[in-house]
Amino acid sequence: MSETIVVALGGNALIREDQRGTYDEQVANARSMARSVGELLRAGWRVVVVHGNGPQVGNVARAYQAAGGTPPAEPLTSLVAMTQGQIGSLLALALHEECGRRVKVVSVVTHSVVDPDRDDSLLPAKPIGAFFTADEAASLRREHHWVMQEDAGRGFRRYVPSPDPVAIVEAGAIHDLVNGGYLVIACGGGGVPVARVPRGYLPVEGVIDKDSAAQLLATELGAEVLGLVTGVQAVHLDFGKPSERPVHVLTSAAAASYLSSGQFPVGSMGPKVRAALRFLDHGGRVAAITTPELLRATLAQDPGAEPVGTRIVPAADHAELS
Amino acid sequence: MSETIVVALGGNALIREDQRGTYDEQVANARSMARSVGELLRAGWRVVVVHGNGPQVGNVARAYQAAGGTPPAEPLTSLVAMTQGQIGSLLALALHEECGRRVKVVSVVTHSVVDPDRDDSLLPAKPIGAFFTADEAASLRREHHWVMQEDAGRGFRRYVPSPDPVAIVEAGAIHDLVNGGYLVIACGGGGVPVARVPRGYLPVEGVIDKDSAAQLLATELGAEVLGLVTGVQAVHLDFGKPSERPVHVLTSAAAASYLSSGQFPVGSMGPKVRAALRFLDHGGRVAAITTPELLRATLAQDPGAEPVGTRIVPAADHAELS
Repeated sequence: MSETIVVALGGNALIREDQRGTYDEQVANARSMARSVGELLRAGWRVVVVHGNGPQVGNVARAYQAAGGTPPAEPLTSLVAMTQGQIGSLLALALHEECGRRVKVVSVVTHSVVDPDRDDSLLPAKPIGAFFTADEAASLRREHHWVMQEDAGRGFRRYVPSPDPVAIVEAGAIHDLVNGGYLVIACGGGGVPVARVPRGYLPVEGVIDKDSAAQLLATELGAEVLGLVTGVQAVHLDFGKPSERPVHVLTSAAAASYLSSGQFPVGSMGPKVRAALRFLDHGGRVAAITTPELLRATLAQDPGAEPVGTRIVPAADHAELS
Repeated sequence: MSETIVVALGGNALIREDQRGTYDEQVANARSMARSVGELLRAGWRVVVVHGNGPQVGNVARAYQAAGGTPPAEPLTSLVAMTQGQIGSLLALALHEECGRRVKVVSVVTHSVVDPDRDDSLLPAKPIGAFFTADEAASLRREHHWVMQEDAGRGFRRYVPSPDPVAIVEAGAIHDLVNGGYLVIACGGGGVPVARVPRGYLPVEGVIDKDSAAQLLATELGAEVLGLVTGVQAVHLDFGKPSERPVHVLTSAAAASYLSSGQFPVGSMGPKVRAALRFLDHGGRVAAITTPELLRATLAQDPGAEPVGTRIVPAADHAELS
């Protein structure tokens, strides 16, 4: 019986920081991600891919913005759904190119349930889209009731809530597809945020952290492994200090203690370590944090090979760090 | 054992001719379509929904156009994929609202294979998006190598190929989901057109007729019924003449003969009748052409009730028209 890994890929992996996001750039980047996912498939894993959409949703939002109301604006939830179609298609085609036409791949439009009654869950938490001047920000506030805040001294941006997801609407379908041998692409951009209402679901303006969504989906699927891929090869301790060093295995107890002592920056490694710990708390076996290229080697830890990447494992597995 | 119906809904059903396509309009229209689909579910059908995307892909194309290159333009195939996410989410939420949270609904990003070697398959056949002046058309020709042609005396539009699909890439996944009891939303906008290449698939600029895609999907799934829903209650003979009359049952032989004698206009009923005949040729039991509201009644044909809608059935079933 194959084991299942949920791999969370950043939206930045498809449009890199120094890129504008042309179609050709995205295709080339999707191709390189497909190589890493293909390695996992060939090693016998069942794979679910969760992707971010930050740069993509920023782009489509900017296009609608430029259109100035013709065509009519779409809410953020629609734009997130659009990027699920766009990136879902791009990744599916890249995976077919990597693994051939016979590989069973399917992209599922996914909704993530959030709980509006939770504390803080609907406070503006995350900047999205373009930067604006103070005047533009004021008019966007008036016109769209957007929350506009200064960001990083580079101007004003729209801030939206980024609530923790509590359930994945399509988890059952994804589960059945994985069991049927499909590589499933799901929870794009963290999923379209919705709230439960007496009948059905209502869209909620916001963006969901894709690592949180990937953790929740991995937990709901009963996946053995959560792979949080990023731009760095391994988690580092004492980041930026002379004592900075990579760490290749962390027990959940050690990771939790480093997290609470501020070892992992809020905007980057912190959310990944938090998602990893939540996954292990709910019965997951290993969470890996590394680059796409090193993911398979991080999980295999071939005997005699140099350790690569970072694995976080339940406290009971390792009495001390290796 | 439940029977399966593939229902093809027009993109115009979500943004009507007299509407600009605001989000609220689309939600209201999705709600009314969900009522019709809900009736089928409650009557025990397994349902697959294929939707058009004409107005929606026109809108997103116009937004990118307005943005003038920032963000970078996306090819038509990406825009089609975007509308699959957008409309797939919209319909899924409307179906949950209609049928409750427990109904098993899933939207699948779908690719339709076309054969570039077929005659005519890559000739510009279908206008998409906005109208342009002759000067604008000339510059779009130069800049994007678009084929621009005058359309209906209202200006110039981009013309793209509209090849017949020969296979649905995700048919296996859709089949498995339907067998698992899911209502599947698939082949949005006819599917993202792709061609087979030695490794995988390559996107092909064009748009696929959603009725053709629905027929092919219905055939590949072995569905019993193809429902082609539209703005008119039934197929009419002698359209626009004093002898005009609705017809409620047509044998495939009669439909083929009316089709070849020019009874059905090329731009509207013709493609639907052609899709219906192809479906029956490949073993389908009934093709229905009617409004969403009358679809269930058309299929049920309750004894004693006035006949509604149009059913097209294999020649052997009815020696003559009822």
